[in-house]
Amino acid sequence: MAKVNQDYLKLPGSYLFSEIGRRVREYEAANPESKIIRLGIGDVTRPLCPAVIDALHKATDEMGSAETFHGYAPDLGYEFLRKTIAQKDFGDRGCDISAEEIFVSDGAKCDCGNIQEIFSKDNKIAVCDPVYPDSNVMAGRAGEYDPVNELFSDVIYMPCDASNCFVPDFPKEVPDLIYLCFPNNPTGAVIAKSKLKQWVDYARKNGSVILYDAAYEAFICEEDIPHSIYECEGARECAIEFRSFSKTAGFTGLRLGYTVIPKDLKVEKTPLWNLWARRHGTKYNGAPYIVQRAGEAVYSEEGRAQVNEQISYYMDNAKIILKELKSLGYDVYGGINAPYIWLKTPKNMTSWEFFDYLLTKANVVGTPGSGFGPHGEGYFRLTAFGDREKTKEALNRIKNI
Amino acid sequence: MAKVNQDYLKLPGSYLFSEIGRRVREYEAANPESKIIRLGIGDVTRPLCPAVIDALHKATDEMGSAETFHGYAPDLGYEFLRKTIAQKDFGDRGCDISAEEIFVSDGAKCDCGNIQEIFSKDNKIAVCDPVYPDSNVMAGRAGEYDPVNELFSDVIYMPCDASNCFVPDFPKEVPDLIYLCFPNNPTGAVIAKSKLKQWVDYARKNGSVILYDAAYEAFICEEDIPHSIYECEGARECAIEFRSFSKTAGFTGLRLGYTVIPKDLKVEKTPLWNLWARRHGTKYNGAPYIVQRAGEAVYSEEGRAQVNEQISYYMDNAKIILKELKSLGYDVYGGINAPYIWLKTPKNMTSWEFFDYLLTKANVVGTPGSGFGPHGEGYFRLTAFGDREKTKEALNRIKNI
Repeated sequence: MAKVNQDYLKLPGSYLFSEIGRRVREYEAANPESKIIRLGIGDVTRPLCPAVIDALHKATDEMGSAETFHGYAPDLGYEFLRKTIAQKDFGDRGCDISAEEIFVSDGAKCDCGNIQEIFSKDNKIAVCDPVYPDSNVMAGRAGEYDPVNELFSDVIYMPCDASNCFVPDFPKEVPDLIYLCFPNNPTGAVIAKSKLKQWVDYARKNGSVILYDAAYEAFICEEDIPHSIYECEGARECAIEFRSFSKTAGFTGLRLGYTVIPKDLKVEKTPLWNLWARRHGTKYNGAPYIVQRAGEAVYSEEGRAQVNEQISYYMDNAKIILKELKSLGYDVYGGINAPYIWLKTPKNMTSWEFFDYLLTKANVVGTPGSGFGPHGEGYFRLTAFGDREKTKEALNRIKNI
Repeated sequence: MAKVNQDYLKLPGSYLFSEIGRRVREYEAANPESKIIRLGIGDVTRPLCPAVIDALHKATDEMGSAETFHGYAPDLGYEFLRKTIAQKDFGDRGCDISAEEIFVSDGAKCDCGNIQEIFSKDNKIAVCDPVYPDSNVMAGRAGEYDPVNELFSDVIYMPCDASNCFVPDFPKEVPDLIYLCFPNNPTGAVIAKSKLKQWVDYARKNGSVILYDAAYEAFICEEDIPHSIYECEGARECAIEFRSFSKTAGFTGLRLGYTVIPKDLKVEKTPLWNLWARRHGTKYNGAPYIVQRAGEAVYSEEGRAQVNEQISYYMDNAKIILKELKSLGYDVYGGINAPYIWLKTPKNMTSWEFFDYLLTKANVVGTPGSGFGPHGEGYFRLTAFGDREKTKEALNRIKNI
């Protein structure tokens, strides 16, 4: 008799975004004249840049001719893309990462979840609180879910709030696996290189592995903020890094990312590279050829310039949001090296109270911080991924409440 | 201290195809004049058909304009594709499957492996022997690997050979999960509807779940062979079906497939639909918009005709291989409703002896049956996915040995 995986039954419903959807729908039904502006979900709105579109058309034509058709892709990605990534994202920044250490995939979300498979089930995981729920805990190691406190019993939570500038301190209990995400979703915080180096040293001392989610790396504009954990000496022996084309180049609907596992990273003398290569080969069949060509185009001179323009567009939105909220007296964080603005709710409102306040008074939708974990309570996330005019209009409405 | 998943260490190396590669490379190095013809690997060779290429170009243009850009896809796939699949692959064949029950993915290989996550770890799996290794056992439930017999201790193997027409009998021990693949890879065998109905009844009686891999469904040309397990009454309560665009429409390098989980399929009162939806939403981000549009084009009148032409091309190859081998006195199976030809090695050669024989005498590469499991010993797989002229030339060479 078949049985289900009991760990799946412990998962809470995807409460956050469905609850947001429910409240917005109800409000719209009761107020059909309202023109809702959504600054809640982190999806991009700008179209793919011309260099990427050209690459897609060209690769599509190749797929239509027997001489240039491509069947199964190499398990770990095409050499042309892996080499380009190793050079442009790492070599050019002085990081020692080879093309062989790049695993091309269909996105960081899948990789962040699937990577857990190569570790022992009794390994203990530390995550930041607040944390973006999807790139986070999935079945197996989390223990029991406590719906009152909204925490799993076996997860080590590392509080991040204004008191530590949203960068976690070392937890009391030493974790086996440490998820870090910088620039951070949802707080928009970044980590200084010196602080990240301390985490690398901590992991090496304790035999922990850092799972470093750098999906928002492209939004870093300040100096001294590390773009990769491999800028820190010793990281090759303790860290896996996840990257994504989703926000960098607007690939949320195209699906491309990659994971870096240095050959020096060994756990119990086993190179993790081998285990992940085995998983890729057995349970994955490679990203589409045309999408890998599109990814390559992001690194061309033309593509890089066009993508930077998109990032500037979003970061100009962030500047507008930051400036207006500050002038209104809000405590605001993030938004400088990340497309997320994390604000303290005014007058001790809870995150959901502020959500309802913005929805009903300004018809603006954001994301309640408490949906990301207990330490997100009293905070609220706005994203810079919207259309310029709508972003401006949203801020105008907030000003006029 | 981090620890690795010990189950991963139990996995044998991907011996089969790497060993084939090694022997071919060595032979080529020693015989640089030889012109090897590969009829071993199951990758397609015909380019994508014009209707698919047109759909890719059109969807790419949409992605380049803000008005028609598509960001994150719906977790379970775009409605336009799910509705088309439900109608054309099921409704039109009299199967009661709704669009909601279709989960669009990047391929059957990923789905066949990942589906195991929603079941309890102590569930016992039955697989055919021989079996295509990749869509098969992955870490966790298989027990210990015995490298001498090339079997896992906790897997129930169901022998398939000429004596049972390569269709398994019910095993002595009742499995919780039953992998069936028809048309079969590697044997090319099909299952009669009456026999499949017996498996459905068996699963329902025992509370087992059938994992039905129908990736080669499009190659069925004879009557009375079921295209879907849902042609059997009761399958909605006990079966999950996997489908793929890879071989149907040459999508091996484009990546698209889908899984069907009927809402009636409950295990311990839990609808499996809910668990798989949860996994899709949490650990997957949807197939690319442009690829889903390409998939839709396969079902258009034009696309269907073009795809059928491709399938005929491959099946004409199969006919040539079958006819020639039969005339040479070989015992041959498959090749009628599947693109694989499964032949008995002559003169009691082992599979690898026959591999070396073909490689050195005819410079033709196939796949030794023993690589698929103990009951594959003494058999050999050839595929119909090659170029027509090369296929003919290969058979000519075999004739002239």
